[in-house]
Amino acid sequence: MSDQPTEKDFIRVFSDVFQFKNKPILSGSEFDDCAALRLDSFSKNISLESLTFSTDTVRESSDFPSGMTFFQKGWMAAAVNLSDLAAMGSKPVAFLFSAGLPAGFTLENAKDLARGIQECVSFFGAEVIGGDTEFCDELTITGTVIGISENKNLILRKGAKPDDLLCVTGFLGSAGVALSGLLGQIGEANASAEFLKNLTEPFSRVFEGEMLAKSGAVNSMIDTSDGLASSVYELSALSGVFFEIDEQRLPLDAEALEILSDHLKNQNEQNEKNEQNETEMTDEQIAAAARSLLIHEALYTGGDYELLFTIPSDKLSFIEELFQKFNEGAAGRFDSLSSNGKSGRYPCKFTVIGKAIAENENVILRHTGLNSQRQPLMKLGYDSFTKYI
Amino acid sequence: MSDQPTEKDFIRVFSDVFQFKNKPILSGSEFDDCAALRLDSFSKNISLESLTFSTDTVRESSDFPSGMTFFQKGWMAAAVNLSDLAAMGSKPVAFLFSAGLPAGFTLENAKDLARGIQECVSFFGAEVIGGDTEFCDELTITGTVIGISENKNLILRKGAKPDDLLCVTGFLGSAGVALSGLLGQIGEANASAEFLKNLTEPFSRVFEGEMLAKSGAVNSMIDTSDGLASSVYELSALSGVFFEIDEQRLPLDAEALEILSDHLKNQNEQNEKNEQNETEMTDEQIAAAARSLLIHEALYTGGDYELLFTIPSDKLSFIEELFQKFNEGAAGRFDSLSSNGKSGRYPCKFTVIGKAIAENENVILRHTGLNSQRQPLMKLGYDSFTKYI
Repeated sequence: MSDQPTEKDFIRVFSDVFQFKNKPILSGSEFDDCAALRLDSFSKNISLESLTFSTDTVRESSDFPSGMTFFQKGWMAAAVNLSDLAAMGSKPVAFLFSAGLPAGFTLENAKDLARGIQECVSFFGAEVIGGDTEFCDELTITGTVIGISENKNLILRKGAKPDDLLCVTGFLGSAGVALSGLLGQIGEANASAEFLKNLTEPFSRVFEGEMLAKSGAVNSMIDTSDGLASSVYELSALSGVFFEIDEQRLPLDAEALEILSDHLKNQNEQNEKNEQNETEMTDEQIAAAARSLLIHEALYTGGDYELLFTIPSDKLSFIEELFQKFNEGAAGRFDSLSSNGKSGRYPCKFTVIGKAIAENENVILRHTGLNSQRQPLMKLGYDSFTKYI
Repeated sequence: MSDQPTEKDFIRVFSDVFQFKNKPILSGSEFDDCAALRLDSFSKNISLESLTFSTDTVRESSDFPSGMTFFQKGWMAAAVNLSDLAAMGSKPVAFLFSAGLPAGFTLENAKDLARGIQECVSFFGAEVIGGDTEFCDELTITGTVIGISENKNLILRKGAKPDDLLCVTGFLGSAGVALSGLLGQIGEANASAEFLKNLTEPFSRVFEGEMLAKSGAVNSMIDTSDGLASSVYELSALSGVFFEIDEQRLPLDAEALEILSDHLKNQNEQNEKNEQNETEMTDEQIAAAARSLLIHEALYTGGDYELLFTIPSDKLSFIEELFQKFNEGAAGRFDSLSSNGKSGRYPCKFTVIGKAIAENENVILRHTGLNSQRQPLMKLGYDSFTKYI
């Protein structure tokens, strides 16, 4: 046990990375029981009316596919919390975490983990103000993020109105495909390192959330962390409206489609070699099958952390203009902010994927192609206890 | 798996207990990604200048001796966090938690756990504003507490000055004795149910911390959660002073002494029956041995959650008066607040156990009795990674 670092050793390493001493805080938790934040440091840019809070846990066995670096594990621990704040349109200002560290965890591991947390939190404009560590069977990180808002800008899940357009940022299903790659189902080598970051370094739509909140045009918002279907049903249940989603409009990443197509093509060729194919698949059939697989990931697999929001239809062009200006400003801004290739997530587009309908019994999914029809969307999504609910 | 409650089932049970709907918050995390707190709800009684935060984790295998109820586990998860806020003299206003629940955890268990959290948080004047659950190998609860303060009232660890009196609230070593009882070393039956609560329902000195902060007479403060020696060395390292502690003055609970005396007496009698005793212990020797054991618990075992603070010597009578008034007011106030026998922790006395000295090489412990001498205090205390540092 002589090589076992103590709690104080770990805290020292964390403190060096987070540099508590240089922060606009009265006292970091390196030195005291609590971290203290002076409120006057926030009132410059925003009329401080409400504080927002979210807490979320990530764990080795359930959240970190094998091969993830400690930097990425730290990044993810911060990002999943920041995404919750983004979904309310709030501005993150501070982050605390409690890290359960397993036997064999080194001070070098702790440094990498802290660097991941620090980079994510500071990228999105907040500060790490405190941490706590204890021994644990497996790496477990519970983060708590604190944000500030003007009351009128807080966007809840319950505001969707009939005829609202249902919109989503970025692409859907990419994290699910990246997970298949890392788990070996489609082969990690088939996906680029940058693509796998869709899963391993989730990108929180913090800036987009703030922009949407300030626009005054958004009626309801949620993130897609547990899959699109789960999020749409949440908006539906709390707003008392239903939705019709157009499968054809779901925003799918070109690389995700290519990865799945290549995988299906390889399988097809393998089957031909083994003479197991009764009928060979055409390229068109492969493309359709890949699309179908990706849509399934988009609807029912978690990990995408995009924003799902509703707007009145007459606000569409206004929101389009906002995103255009945002992306024009973003290119340079985010390049300079990040040392980690995060600007690759920009430009951020948004897509109208359906609309709210007043009366129905379910959320409806409009299929395309041969089996074109309207069907109830399955109420499936990631659940930590049952995996699928 | 059909009986396995889902995440939503657990959140529903939590929400019923915490009654998010009735809280002075804009939105509880039952319904949204975040909890939102309106700041104007706090500015009535206090000039709101700083926010304080602390986060801490408790786990089945390391923090819950067998026999603890789920109510007690919930209480403890809240209390350990509240104690950190108390040590800074801050007023708690809100609590969030992330609960990792193991296989077989029922909705009834969840309800009891939530009731424990709720009772502790509301007893100390704060609100549960959010929670999150996920599946975990063992019950794991990470709490985050948010407090408010006026800047001038925040008490840090680093303010101790030479000649300050070193004071502590309540009794020391009781949690360690209760742990021995629950672990079977002295036999659970030998301790009263109320006494075991020293360990299983730790009582945070939140009100005392606020009072001390407002007094303007306290130079430094910390809680004793990792044992007295560990806390004294923290004050010493950050304040740049040393301390001399008088062993004779350590506040020891009469029941703790009695439990240890009875245990030693039983052992002694057992040894006599087995004719293993060379010399029979006298009652006086037993009393001295019990006292010595309890002092060891007080110095080096965690779990007491008392406040350790320093004051200039000319402020002693002022602080004595404050505590007297506090206890006079407390009796009725705390009876009505608690349904759980917590008023048994009052009246709360405080004890001067030593003083700060400018120049030395160690914290000094002045022994009493036959081996009366001054010795360096061992730098031992609870550490989650090494158990003893």
